[in-house]
Amino acid sequence: MINIGIVGGSGYTGAELLRLLAAHPSVVLEVVTSRAAAGRPVGEMFPHLRGHVDLEFSAPDAAPLRNCDLVFFAAPNGTAMTLAPELLESGVRVIDLAADFRLRDPAVWQRWYGTPHVCPALLEEAVYGLPELNRDEIREARLVANPGCYPTAVILGFLPLLELGAVDTGRLVADAKSGVSGAGRKVSESLLMGEVGESFSAYAVGGHRHLPEILQGLAATGVAPGLVFVPHLLPMIRGIHATLYAPLVVAGLDLQAVFERRYADEPFVDVLPAGAHPQTRSVRGSNLCRLAVHRAPDSDSVVVLSVIDNLVKGAAGQAVQNMNLMCGLDETAGLMHIALQP
Amino acid sequence: MINIGIVGGSGYTGAELLRLLAAHPSVVLEVVTSRAAAGRPVGEMFPHLRGHVDLEFSAPDAAPLRNCDLVFFAAPNGTAMTLAPELLESGVRVIDLAADFRLRDPAVWQRWYGTPHVCPALLEEAVYGLPELNRDEIREARLVANPGCYPTAVILGFLPLLELGAVDTGRLVADAKSGVSGAGRKVSESLLMGEVGESFSAYAVGGHRHLPEILQGLAATGVAPGLVFVPHLLPMIRGIHATLYAPLVVAGLDLQAVFERRYADEPFVDVLPAGAHPQTRSVRGSNLCRLAVHRAPDSDSVVVLSVIDNLVKGAAGQAVQNMNLMCGLDETAGLMHIALQP
Amino acid sequence: MINIGIVGGSGYTGAELLRLLAAHPSVVLEVVTSRAAAGRPVGEMFPHLRGHVDLEFSAPDAAPLRNCDLVFFAAPNGTAMTLAPELLESGVRVIDLAADFRLRDPAVWQRWYGTPHVCPALLEEAVYGLPELNRDEIREARLVANPGCYPTAVILGFLPLLELGAVDTGRLVADAKSGVSGAGRKVSESLLMGEVGESFSAYAVGGHRHLPEILQGLAATGVAPGLVFVPHLLPMIRGIHATLYAPLVVAGLDLQAVFERRYADEPFVDVLPAGAHPQTRSVRGSNLCRLAVHRAPDSDSVVVLSVIDNLVKGAAGQAVQNMNLMCGLDETAGLMHIALQP
Amino acid sequence: MINIGIVGGSGYTGAELLRLLAAHPSVVLEVVTSRAAAGRPVGEMFPHLRGHVDLEFSAPDAAPLRNCDLVFFAAPNGTAMTLAPELLESGVRVIDLAADFRLRDPAVWQRWYGTPHVCPALLEEAVYGLPELNRDEIREARLVANPGCYPTAVILGFLPLLELGAVDTGRLVADAKSGVSGAGRKVSESLLMGEVGESFSAYAVGGHRHLPEILQGLAATGVAPGLVFVPHLLPMIRGIHATLYAPLVVAGLDLQAVFERRYADEPFVDVLPAGAHPQTRSVRGSNLCRLAVHRAPDSDSVVVLSVIDNLVKGAAGQAVQNMNLMCGLDETAGLMHIALQP
Repeated sequence: MINIGIVGGSGYTGAELLRLLAAHPSVVLEVVTSRAAAGRPVGEMFPHLRGHVDLEFSAPDAAPLRNCDLVFFAAPNGTAMTLAPELLESGVRVIDLAADFRLRDPAVWQRWYGTPHVCPALLEEAVYGLPELNRDEIREARLVANPGCYPTAVILGFLPLLELGAVDTGRLVADAKSGVSGAGRKVSESLLMGEVGESFSAYAVGGHRHLPEILQGLAATGVAPGLVFVPHLLPMIRGIHATLYAPLVVAGLDLQAVFERRYADEPFVDVLPAGAHPQTRSVRGSNLCRLAVHRAPDSDSVVVLSVIDNLVKGAAGQAVQNMNLMCGLDETAGLMHIALQP
Repeated sequence: MINIGIVGGSGYTGAELLRLLAAHPSVVLEVVTSRAAAGRPVGEMFPHLRGHVDLEFSAPDAAPLRNCDLVFFAAPNGTAMTLAPELLESGVRVIDLAADFRLRDPAVWQRWYGTPHVCPALLEEAVYGLPELNRDEIREARLVANPGCYPTAVILGFLPLLELGAVDTGRLVADAKSGVSGAGRKVSESLLMGEVGESFSAYAVGGHRHLPEILQGLAATGVAPGLVFVPHLLPMIRGIHATLYAPLVVAGLDLQAVFERRYADEPFVDVLPAGAHPQTRSVRGSNLCRLAVHRAPDSDSVVVLSVIDNLVKGAAGQAVQNMNLMCGLDETAGLMHIALQP
Repeated sequence: MINIGIVGGSGYTGAELLRLLAAHPSVVLEVVTSRAAAGRPVGEMFPHLRGHVDLEFSAPDAAPLRNCDLVFFAAPNGTAMTLAPELLESGVRVIDLAADFRLRDPAVWQRWYGTPHVCPALLEEAVYGLPELNRDEIREARLVANPGCYPTAVILGFLPLLELGAVDTGRLVADAKSGVSGAGRKVSESLLMGEVGESFSAYAVGGHRHLPEILQGLAATGVAPGLVFVPHLLPMIRGIHATLYAPLVVAGLDLQAVFERRYADEPFVDVLPAGAHPQTRSVRGSNLCRLAVHRAPDSDSVVVLSVIDNLVKGAAGQAVQNMNLMCGLDETAGLMHIALQP
Repeated sequence: MINIGIVGGSGYTGAELLRLLAAHPSVVLEVVTSRAAAGRPVGEMFPHLRGHVDLEFSAPDAAPLRNCDLVFFAAPNGTAMTLAPELLESGVRVIDLAADFRLRDPAVWQRWYGTPHVCPALLEEAVYGLPELNRDEIREARLVANPGCYPTAVILGFLPLLELGAVDTGRLVADAKSGVSGAGRKVSESLLMGEVGESFSAYAVGGHRHLPEILQGLAATGVAPGLVFVPHLLPMIRGIHATLYAPLVVAGLDLQAVFERRYADEPFVDVLPAGAHPQTRSVRGSNLCRLAVHRAPDSDSVVVLSVIDNLVKGAAGQAVQNMNLMCGLDETAGLMHIALQP
């Protein structure tokens, strides 16, 4: 059994990690920290976990974390980079679900996150935890940067096209929509149900932190893409839908076959039949990304539809998938939940 | 006072016409037809209209309609084109909220609607009822084709850019999202709350009937644009949000000023301050289109955000605006409702 | 024209007052205060009011308020009782939408609100602003306590039965459900969409501040009722539904006639036909209370269904109704909005 | 392994049975029938089941069902009573999720369902499948009538009080609220999202078919209770919340202890700590009923709050629990899913 610690377990990502790990066959939850909730039973803050998780939140403290085999950081940006170095030194492996280790270039980090990076040396070592892109590196990694929710949905959708050189990479558009849980559980007027219910809008059109992460992820295919990325907030709780647009530069491609071939062996990417329109609810609570690829009518453009559950494949589920790889377990262990529909 | 008839008053568009016309200072509701609800009091089917509309639905019958000054068709596609000719001959003016007279080319109609048009001669006469584009023609029209909801939001958003020649018109993308009332009140499994609540997806990526309508509307600027149009269904009731993308081909433009100038005199188009993100709720129940224009970061692309209430500016409100113009009334009469927020 | 001030205009109740007053034919909005938003244009915080309200929020300051004819308090509990005395002295009439003047007994206030009342002398003078109960007193009042949202729905539903002595007043049950806007716009984790969306629960079963207010209101009929009151939070924004239960003690009553007679002359109470089930959406945005009365099957109990929009008849609309009465205007002036359905 | 058939697998209850059984360690899905969907792959109608259920829907036909060990009926009322007799004769055990075998008295059936019962002889044999009431009989049963969703929530909430004789059983009130999936997937105008979203109302106040079922279930405690039962429709998908009221007739009871003791050994009933308010989301997707018991303030009444997922403990989950008991499996096998929150 693998001993697990979670730093920052009182947000939505932390709660989802607890849901997945509580039912995982090969792990023991040792410690869950939360500064604000220290001393409170987990099942009191999260009644759905009553009877499944028998821990109390503890104050963030490195000592008990050092005894874990692997520690997840489900805390705000800037937390993991202060604690990870000493944990790694103690031989603990680390998966950060925040952004601290996602961008390889400390200058890009500083531009988008507003502060200098405190351990730039680790940026080189950290592996970007998208198994469909970096499976082998993840298996060997001490430190994994778990991808953002939008980047997961967008990169998986564009990947087959870019790897093949099939599209004009200077003219990519990603129109992405997320349920409110993507913003976490932070107490903000803009996330009140009275503000976001029965309404819809874009946000951060002037620049969202996931843009450089997506660009870096796509650049793994060998091109430096030009991308317009616009995120929107949906009046619902779970789910991301990315609608991706690109002009084709290669004629006569069987796009359906391209996507099916690329993801044939991926346990968590499901290419739907031609003509399908994936619904976010078809992945609610599951670790799957479901994709469909279309030709726009009377046009040379391709449209890819990509859905994930932002808290699972977009966060906690992908983190557990990374853990499975890092620990030599079956990649799908504890992750075969069927989506909750309706 | 103007005597009004409504054909097909038992759907959402019909109900919204009734809401607006019941409070309009210059009209008298004479007849509201509904085949299915004939004989039922309007206030029984629509409790919100109790005390405001004192009519019964009547069977569709041309005779009482011929005594009206103006008749709205809020019925399914194919209804107006069978009844409009005889009403026009009787001197009744007609506004069709369905699609029968929106496309000028009968061949395009047949391609997208699957049947031959039954009165192609009227297609030339019919005026496309987007006041921001055709105000003078609407004033003189006997027959107005009220625009579709998506086309209203998309055309108003692209118009200033195309009129100016500011963008590459071959590379337009319109990613549009609509509340479920946009599909009307038809009894369909796919519109059950159990199917569309808490979920999100695209639909009709392979071709939506509003595509040729948008193309025709944009062509009024003198170009034949290339457009990828993808509609999506939102888990909410009212509101359309169109996110519009185009590559700029002119440098140094003050986009904010372009939009403010274009719509300075329009009573129902509100250009938000630079940097804004309009929410659909800010127009719920109102006849406004609110717009914001952005430059995408690190890119030569422009992003326009356009919101309307699909049942008001996207249907019944715009129809009343057209009626006001056709009847020589103040264009804003009966249309100054403030949006309901939250 | 009547000069109006609003204290605390940046919450949901304040915004709704602004919506109603901006379209009211006999008032001029002079001043709207908000400590947090002082200096910000109203239309910036509330985009739906752009073009309708051309004021800036100002800091709370008695001087400009003293120049008003009437001041609404849409601020938290405890605000009006500190400012009202000096305004009244200056000849300004006051309507408090919070709870400061609702309970006549300062000891009851202290029990439920936790602090001593600072101007108990005014409690005697204040009129409880439920026009269906106290219309004549409201006409003469200097100070009106606008009722709470739950009390409005519950009292209007029970009133005809208690006035008639038709039920066992010791066994009343009020099971009430409210949309989230009833809790105001306060930034609280428990009101995040991620917390309250797609879920339902009771709250404050151990005691809610509206219980003594309901009891006091019902006592106006001459009985001291025994009531179990349980409020619940609905996963939607606007609307209250109260389901009321009482054992009948009089046989052979035509309950439908009792209700229709009681409310025959009330402009804002609509008794639905026998057998109806009012939906909250049928009053969304309107000042109506819609009621239906039923006999429970195989039982001697009566069930009353009562719906209001918590922000209109449950708050701002009723306040304007009270203003109309206090100022000698038509009671329905500016209040005939038709509900927004769907 | 147990061979399973499902009759009527294309509704919400059928889909939920498929979700639960596909992950159950001891069953093999042999046949799933659906008249309308015969020949269609399950994963095409229910994309969330792609990769988990590899069957096609087949036409309803007794032959393959006779080869099953156990058959679930997730079909409309009236289906099981025509097919069950011959299956039972073939030695197949049957669990009906509809109402055919819930009421023991054929006259009561006829009053509430409008048709004579076609196999009244089986009504005596059928066991009402509420394990918390009839565990031992279920173990031995050939034919189990799976309880309705409302009856499950209401009976579990009242049971401890009635068994103890603690309340006035002539004055029970059950105010129950259900998400829309409780009405199934039937195509009805009244279940469109445009009709039920952002709104709330009661229905069937004049008499709901679950009333006699609840009365019969409660009568198992030896009393013939008087109950007012009012169901309501929530603007959400999954979840039932029953708020139960009863006057106490015994003084000095520790209600919390009464409930904890009654359900101490029940794997699927969770009594929350004193003062709690269960949220429906805390059981979403899980087979639990969570309860809280309160004293109403200044009153002799008890208030019980009871939540279940209507599709799990209120339908498919309870059916699997019954199957486990009938087949000698661990009662919790395949049913330990943690609720999906948020």
